Amino acid sequence: MKQAVPNKKSIPNRARMLISCPDQPGIVAAVSQFLFEHGANIVQSDQYTMDPEGGMFFMRIEFDLERLDERIAQLKSDFAESANVFQMKWSLVKASRKKRLAVFVSKEDHCLLELLWQWQAGDLDADISMVISNHPDMQGIVESFGIPYYHIPVTANTKEEAERKQLELLVGQVDAIILARYMQIISPKFIEYFPGRIINIHHSFLPAFVGASPYAQAFKRGVKIIGATAHYVTEELDAGPIIDQDVQRVTHRDNVDELKRIGRHIERIVLARAVSWHVEDRIIVHHNKTVVFN
Amino acid sequence: MKQAVPNKKSIPNRARMLISCPDQPGIVAAVSQFLFEHGANIVQSDQYTMDPEGGMFFMRIEFDLERLDERIAQLKSDFAESANVFQMKWSLVKASRKKRLAVFVSKEDHCLLELLWQWQAGDLDADISMVISNHPDMQGIVESFGIPYYHIPVTANTKEEAERKQLELLVGQVDAIILARYMQIISPKFIEYFPGRIINIHHSFLPAFVGASPYAQAFKRGVKIIGATAHYVTEELDAGPIIDQDVQRVTHRDNVDELKRIGRHIERIVLARAVSWHVEDRIIVHHNKTVVFN
Amino acid sequence: MKQAVPNKKSIPNRARMLISCPDQPGIVAAVSQFLFEHGANIVQSDQYTMDPEGGMFFMRIEFDLERLDERIAQLKSDFAESANVFQMKWSLVKASRKKRLAVFVSKEDHCLLELLWQWQAGDLDADISMVISNHPDMQGIVESFGIPYYHIPVTANTKEEAERKQLELLVGQVDAIILARYMQIISPKFIEYFPGRIINIHHSFLPAFVGASPYAQAFKRGVKIIGATAHYVTEELDAGPIIDQDVQRVTHRDNVDELKRIGRHIERIVLARAVSWHVEDRIIVHHNKTVVFN
Amino acid sequence: MKQAVPNKKSIPNRARMLISCPDQPGIVAAVSQFLFEHGANIVQSDQYTMDPEGGMFFMRIEFDLERLDERIAQLKSDFAESANVFQMKWSLVKASRKKRLAVFVSKEDHCLLELLWQWQAGDLDADISMVISNHPDMQGIVESFGIPYYHIPVTANTKEEAERKQLELLVGQVDAIILARYMQIISPKFIEYFPGRIINIHHSFLPAFVGASPYAQAFKRGVKIIGATAHYVTEELDAGPIIDQDVQRVTHRDNVDELKRIGRHIERIVLARAVSWHVEDRIIVHHNKTVVFN
Repeated sequence: MKQAVPNKKSIPNRARMLISCPDQPGIVAAVSQFLFEHGANIVQSDQYTMDPEGGMFFMRIEFDLERLDERIAQLKSDFAESANVFQMKWSLVKASRKKRLAVFVSKEDHCLLELLWQWQAGDLDADISMVISNHPDMQGIVESFGIPYYHIPVTANTKEEAERKQLELLVGQVDAIILARYMQIISPKFIEYFPGRIINIHHSFLPAFVGASPYAQAFKRGVKIIGATAHYVTEELDAGPIIDQDVQRVTHRDNVDELKRIGRHIERIVLARAVSWHVEDRIIVHHNKTVVFN
Repeated sequence: MKQAVPNKKSIPNRARMLISCPDQPGIVAAVSQFLFEHGANIVQSDQYTMDPEGGMFFMRIEFDLERLDERIAQLKSDFAESANVFQMKWSLVKASRKKRLAVFVSKEDHCLLELLWQWQAGDLDADISMVISNHPDMQGIVESFGIPYYHIPVTANTKEEAERKQLELLVGQVDAIILARYMQIISPKFIEYFPGRIINIHHSFLPAFVGASPYAQAFKRGVKIIGATAHYVTEELDAGPIIDQDVQRVTHRDNVDELKRIGRHIERIVLARAVSWHVEDRIIVHHNKTVVFN
Repeated sequence: MKQAVPNKKSIPNRARMLISCPDQPGIVAAVSQFLFEHGANIVQSDQYTMDPEGGMFFMRIEFDLERLDERIAQLKSDFAESANVFQMKWSLVKASRKKRLAVFVSKEDHCLLELLWQWQAGDLDADISMVISNHPDMQGIVESFGIPYYHIPVTANTKEEAERKQLELLVGQVDAIILARYMQIISPKFIEYFPGRIINIHHSFLPAFVGASPYAQAFKRGVKIIGATAHYVTEELDAGPIIDQDVQRVTHRDNVDELKRIGRHIERIVLARAVSWHVEDRIIVHHNKTVVFN
Repeated sequence: MKQAVPNKKSIPNRARMLISCPDQPGIVAAVSQFLFEHGANIVQSDQYTMDPEGGMFFMRIEFDLERLDERIAQLKSDFAESANVFQMKWSLVKASRKKRLAVFVSKEDHCLLELLWQWQAGDLDADISMVISNHPDMQGIVESFGIPYYHIPVTANTKEEAERKQLELLVGQVDAIILARYMQIISPKFIEYFPGRIINIHHSFLPAFVGASPYAQAFKRGVKIIGATAHYVTEELDAGPIIDQDVQRVTHRDNVDELKRIGRHIERIVLARAVSWHVEDRIIVHHNKTVVFN
């Protein structure tokens, strides 16, 4: 069984805050003053104001605080007051507390393997708690990484039952779900259990080529660049907030098989990057768009 | 008045052939044997077979032939026979005979300026015969390059009349038309005069964001990459054969104005590249796609 | 004479601060508290800590303050006290006060033309106060933009005298000097007048191919990617702090002329981007490296 | 044990020719006529003339020929005559005859894993015959792919002996050697056994940062883009013919560890691409440069 090396980003006393609220003067001052008074040292701070007048304000802060473990509960409770003044939506987490992921996969293995490889190399700062698949194909490779594999077949008739079984495994056990070329549509009811916490890789440059067989669509249209898109899953198919996209040039020589081969390389890079940003608390979703502090 | 420097690609005795036909054994042999027997030296040859069995064959050849000027007519006449055997669509032109371009422009000047700059630098191997605009704004700059400028206003009522005036200037005088952010839709009747010879730059990564205000559409969708597409104009809006595309990463910080600014840089590069390929006979259109030998 | 359109970034009451100092807890709190108490609203804030323990801290803040014009002197004087506590090197400028640039050029016009074009399009938030050249070639085009052009020939014998003439034009009149393919080496004595304020474009991907004829060097080595580098000029040739670099793929088909042609496009984009960042106060130089908040 | 899926490029009757010779008229005609007369159908043909007058001519042809297996010996023997006329250096191989690779590795696994993954996915059209390492670390993972693993330690004293052992395993058994972050210098004597058939990945954008610790060198210089270079190994360290390079943007925030992490992704992509081109006979080495028909 392989062991992931310790991730270098996991500094014991480091915490991360994400904040979004209506913009007004004094937010940065209040937050940084609060942290200073509590003895924290800000090591990274990013902010974005959607529109200086009357828009939204977004902020991400990384800070170090001695004995974070024992003090984080009090810190949160103290911050809640300031947060109310500014009508903040906010989160405050320990960086060392790895997020637990479930990876969903069907028959294509490249996105899963990239996540496993980056996890093992210490580049993906998360725990992969389980892999769930509607096919048995990848049981061997997944278990060789010491990760539980659940084969839950899905047919038109058993879909509801399958999702029930999946939820039994997932709820309370994982923080986010990664659809690593999982070729089943997730029901709205399922999504409600993990709002803003299901990431999908779509094998096209959205919003081009929504739906099935995007590489065949791309070939037919004769595009000169193909791409892939990682996005949060919402009720509307392939229409959720985009996290990341990447592309590669292609030519008239590339047939559909070749586009798929090239596309696999784009997909795995884009999905792994999006998952990294999610587990490192770099993403704030606002309406149907993302603010990514990377 | 500025003078374009002589283009280094304009070698006096160089010719270019473009060929497309159903694939079968012996085409390359026949063509290269033909050229060899006529004393030509092939300096560049590219080919593409869409599908080895029963598909289409495309070829581009550059060759040097002593005293090309006096011999090209005979060469064409001789080649016509071989061409018939293979059911070829083909063209054979002197590389030194520059294509004459008309550039259409409205109020945005960046694509026009890029073409003028590349032309003046000797990078665009063509003559810019005239600029036609529905606005007077760019008359000064265009005329400072020694290029005639025709201001032909267009309104809903005068569109037909305007196209008639344009055609009077164009037919027989130019080889291709470049829509360099010309914000008017070209009528099917007009297109018939220049089939496969009108190039448009669309300010999005097609097929995403067809039609008006693509940067506003891109902002709304929250894409992480924007692009531009150069394509041949056909009857269906923004649906003609794609010649080239390029993209650039953007972030949540980029508002619509910023997307436009970034996009301008992509548009001018993509359009200039597509025009270069067209005037250097590097493009074969097949159905709604392009084969680009670059 | 052409007029630059007003730059959209020039908001009347906006100010920009750049700060660098040894890292310690409380810096962000102190600065943001200071600004809040003076009635400023932070619209953008970026920071970077070189190493959480014992390293350097760098910060860039954009803020809006009512009646900035009348209050900026007092603001600076007040801030000086806090700045001392933290041993800050800092600057505080009005965003609406455009930096004045002198562009130096020799015979290649592409970098100059790009700057003129971006300036005219309102993308370059600066005043181009003058162009100085050791050749007369570009007088016409520069003056057509309403910009003074000074032809100061340089030979081995007259170099000192030429620099003296240049300094007479420059000192007190411009804030930064842009070497837009100026093919003369600047003397250390000259550099002392504009420390950290002379930007050069080198036509290679530094540190590869330092010195003369980088494209010929690149061709000889057979690289598959070429690049360009914008950097601040220091005494050591091509060794100053790098601001930006970009690259493009090339192939065995590209001879030296073709590399130059491709390179021109990279050079002008990279130089224009570096100049933009400089005039928007996005760059802090630390030792021989740059921190770029973009 | 995992099985590589059959590579889609392995069409039974397909052959590949590589040709280089001094340029003169009639080469393409002679070759294509020869193939036509022998009943071959050219499916892909690329050529490059270094300089139309007096330069070198390079060509790559893929063709299909019925019953290739039984006829290839005769074909070669027939072609040798034409080849002599043009002073050709040439090769003619069956595409279905996979090249046998030995992969050398030390402690970093990412380049090896990428090759294994692409091989298993059917994207790398080769046999991986063995992995040789100076460390035991990767024995488990390599053997799980059904590939023999040889642990041959190397010290300053045992280097000659180690190379002798390696050669015993390699000579006659493999067609090419891939140094997948193998941290030992190969002796000139060893190289003589595999001239032009040893590919190394260097973790910098050559010729920048030759030798040890290129990421530390890159960090010190403050470059804004890092890269990796795949090249054939020659006697002079990191100076052999470059096959491919790629790069990625970095910022002041990226410390040496982060550069290494980003670099790993570039290295594995670049090496895998170079190996693919080598095994698909797409590369011709001429002096110290490569012609790559891809």
